[in-house]
Amino acid sequence: MYTCSLVAVGHELLDGRITDTNSDFIADALASLGIKVGLRIIVDDDLEDIRSTLNWSAVRSDIIIVTGGLGPTDDDITREAAAEAFQLPLHRDPEIEKAVRGLFRHMDREMPPSNLKQADLLEGAAPITARMGTAPGQILERDGKIIVLLPGVPREMKDMMTSGVVPILKEKLSIEKTRKTLSFTVAARPESEVAETVSPALAQFNKVSVSYRAQPGEIEVRLEDWEKESGNLARAAEALREVLGPWLVAEGDETLEGNLGGELRYRSLTLAVAESCTGGMVGERITRIPGSSDYFLGGVVAYSYSVKEKLLQVEKGLLEEKGAVCEEVAEAMARGVKQLFSSDIGLAVTGVAGPGAGNEKEPVGSVAFGLASSQESMAWKFRLPGNRDMVRRVATTVLLAITYLYLQGLKEAIPRG
Amino acid sequence: MYTCSLVAVGHELLDGRITDTNSDFIADALASLGIKVGLRIIVDDDLEDIRSTLNWSAVRSDIIIVTGGLGPTDDDITREAAAEAFQLPLHRDPEIEKAVRGLFRHMDREMPPSNLKQADLLEGAAPITARMGTAPGQILERDGKIIVLLPGVPREMKDMMTSGVVPILKEKLSIEKTRKTLSFTVAARPESEVAETVSPALAQFNKVSVSYRAQPGEIEVRLEDWEKESGNLARAAEALREVLGPWLVAEGDETLEGNLGGELRYRSLTLAVAESCTGGMVGERITRIPGSSDYFLGGVVAYSYSVKEKLLQVEKGLLEEKGAVCEEVAEAMARGVKQLFSSDIGLAVTGVAGPGAGNEKEPVGSVAFGLASSQESMAWKFRLPGNRDMVRRVATTVLLAITYLYLQGLKEAIPRG
Repeated sequence: MYTCSLVAVGHELLDGRITDTNSDFIADALASLGIKVGLRIIVDDDLEDIRSTLNWSAVRSDIIIVTGGLGPTDDDITREAAAEAFQLPLHRDPEIEKAVRGLFRHMDREMPPSNLKQADLLEGAAPITARMGTAPGQILERDGKIIVLLPGVPREMKDMMTSGVVPILKEKLSIEKTRKTLSFTVAARPESEVAETVSPALAQFNKVSVSYRAQPGEIEVRLEDWEKESGNLARAAEALREVLGPWLVAEGDETLEGNLGGELRYRSLTLAVAESCTGGMVGERITRIPGSSDYFLGGVVAYSYSVKEKLLQVEKGLLEEKGAVCEEVAEAMARGVKQLFSSDIGLAVTGVAGPGAGNEKEPVGSVAFGLASSQESMAWKFRLPGNRDMVRRVATTVLLAITYLYLQGLKEAIPRG
Repeated sequence: MYTCSLVAVGHELLDGRITDTNSDFIADALASLGIKVGLRIIVDDDLEDIRSTLNWSAVRSDIIIVTGGLGPTDDDITREAAAEAFQLPLHRDPEIEKAVRGLFRHMDREMPPSNLKQADLLEGAAPITARMGTAPGQILERDGKIIVLLPGVPREMKDMMTSGVVPILKEKLSIEKTRKTLSFTVAARPESEVAETVSPALAQFNKVSVSYRAQPGEIEVRLEDWEKESGNLARAAEALREVLGPWLVAEGDETLEGNLGGELRYRSLTLAVAESCTGGMVGERITRIPGSSDYFLGGVVAYSYSVKEKLLQVEKGLLEEKGAVCEEVAEAMARGVKQLFSSDIGLAVTGVAGPGAGNEKEPVGSVAFGLASSQESMAWKFRLPGNRDMVRRVATTVLLAITYLYLQGLKEAIPRG
């Protein structure tokens, strides 16, 4: 297995003002080739620091990828540091020089002479073309090591990495097998339960690796496989879909709110939402999707008892007797907002987000959900984990997931609290 | 100036699944002492990799702080790697051993023997007490270098850094001057304008450094000063307050939505919000503040024309003639939501978030804002930058800022689009 060192150049990365996301992107791209990142180093824009870092990492890895310091300013000294580290002279490349000059002519701007250093290539290096900026990247082999210099601007770096570096590495290192990944979003289930369901179902696919990433109310399950055309990954995905059932709410780049929107659009149904503890978060999430106005009519944020009564027709006696956090109130709010907006579906969420319980009798984290359609209305109550922000986020996801299941005719799958 | 290397140990940090936020925290804490971070390294849980990294960084810095690898599992080998790197034997500390054993007795759990390695100290090292976990940190001097080992769990690391490492470094390095910082939140002004206003005003305070950080619709201005008790920072802050005027909406840990809530509470006023393009984001942001139910009655997400007409009493003719994104509609929505909720103040936002303009005549980014009180109603229209998500976030901040200014009697300061 080849190992790679990633070196990010720039003082703004050292003090934490800017996070080195470039190295995350490169590490993931390398992982898809089976190349392991063994070291990640952030170093100042200092010639001696960069030189020493390059020499040290060359000892400890087969591949070194440097990001940053290829621009036109005095701070940009990665090329010079690499030249010293690997004892290779820099040569000005006439083709790149022409391109740099042309770019300035095209912008009708005078070119500062320092810009020409962007045309300097290490001896033996091939340029990696910049489709989006002026400074090209460089790739070369030296003493059996592959050395890559890339710009620090994420957009340019990603483009060169994907269209330049990955194909070259595959060829140079004769990499045949590449990693394939599939991802799945499970909503409103605890991570432990998802793992306990998924693990035994995938036990027979021992070459497919599984990982989990938790977000508020959602778990992303990721499958990875190195087999070439074995069909293992597709079979594992099929097994996963089967055991996850209705709680699998999205695959790949899909989102729960996007799929819910698709379902509403497909069934020509309109939606309105009554929110209490979430304060608008449900509406905000539904309207992240461009074109959501086709099915989302709007909502009421009913933060006070009086609004729940007057606008949503929740009975005053019910609120006084049981408080706002109970199934009866959630169901009444859903019916109320459906009527107010003349929508096909009405949704409601009411709960105690904390930190205190205020006037409610229910504990922090207690949240009730309501749904009303033209045929029926129903409600659920759950106890959700976390602090105020977490309870609100999880509640939002749970309401969207319940609705998505209901629309697919799977209301029996929703647990009763 | 002292320089420090930060070494983070753990394979989960190498592939980008987990971001090394520990080093950001430590870099900021060191900056407050005037210690510069010259290198940041992430290294695998591998004895030889860690040893080599420690030896190399010891050459290049005065202080080395290592995070991670101090736990009880086989993967936790930072102590052993440091022992090899600095040729120092490990000694089991009887006090720490007692504490570790006591912790397991307290939890009524059998202690796996490997846990005792957490009681091993490098020769000459002082333990840094773990108020929150089992593994203590360690600090020692060797050949004129200061070496610090800290756990990787952020909560434990932060506690040890703040209460242990910073005071020890101050004493050992005889650091007298420490950095003081003040931060200021400016809303609804472009970063360039803020910088052009702030720079000349602070020119006379040449020892106070200024930095800017942009968030959607808000700029954080940060002042830093190294002078000891000079009063420079306080005077610079005063000058800053003067030139920023009403657009300075929060200081330190305050937030715009928190200060707006404070203003409403102080004036015993209630609020209701009509949202279109923001879809609920304004309500969500107002209700982030615990206790916001004291002044926030709720809102209407009026995503469709029919809701704007029926619930908010916007004239159909107006919508047909001018579309939903104009000052007249925003003002009517604000009046409508005020009446519907019987609130003291009604707010409204309606705009084109994109990516397309849909049926609206206005371009993407065009957003109108309305405000109605018991005395008057008014509206503004602005062109906001960015993609769908950005337009919605900036619009939310602008509406909150406008309202905050209005409540303070500063409505003349709000530009007319």
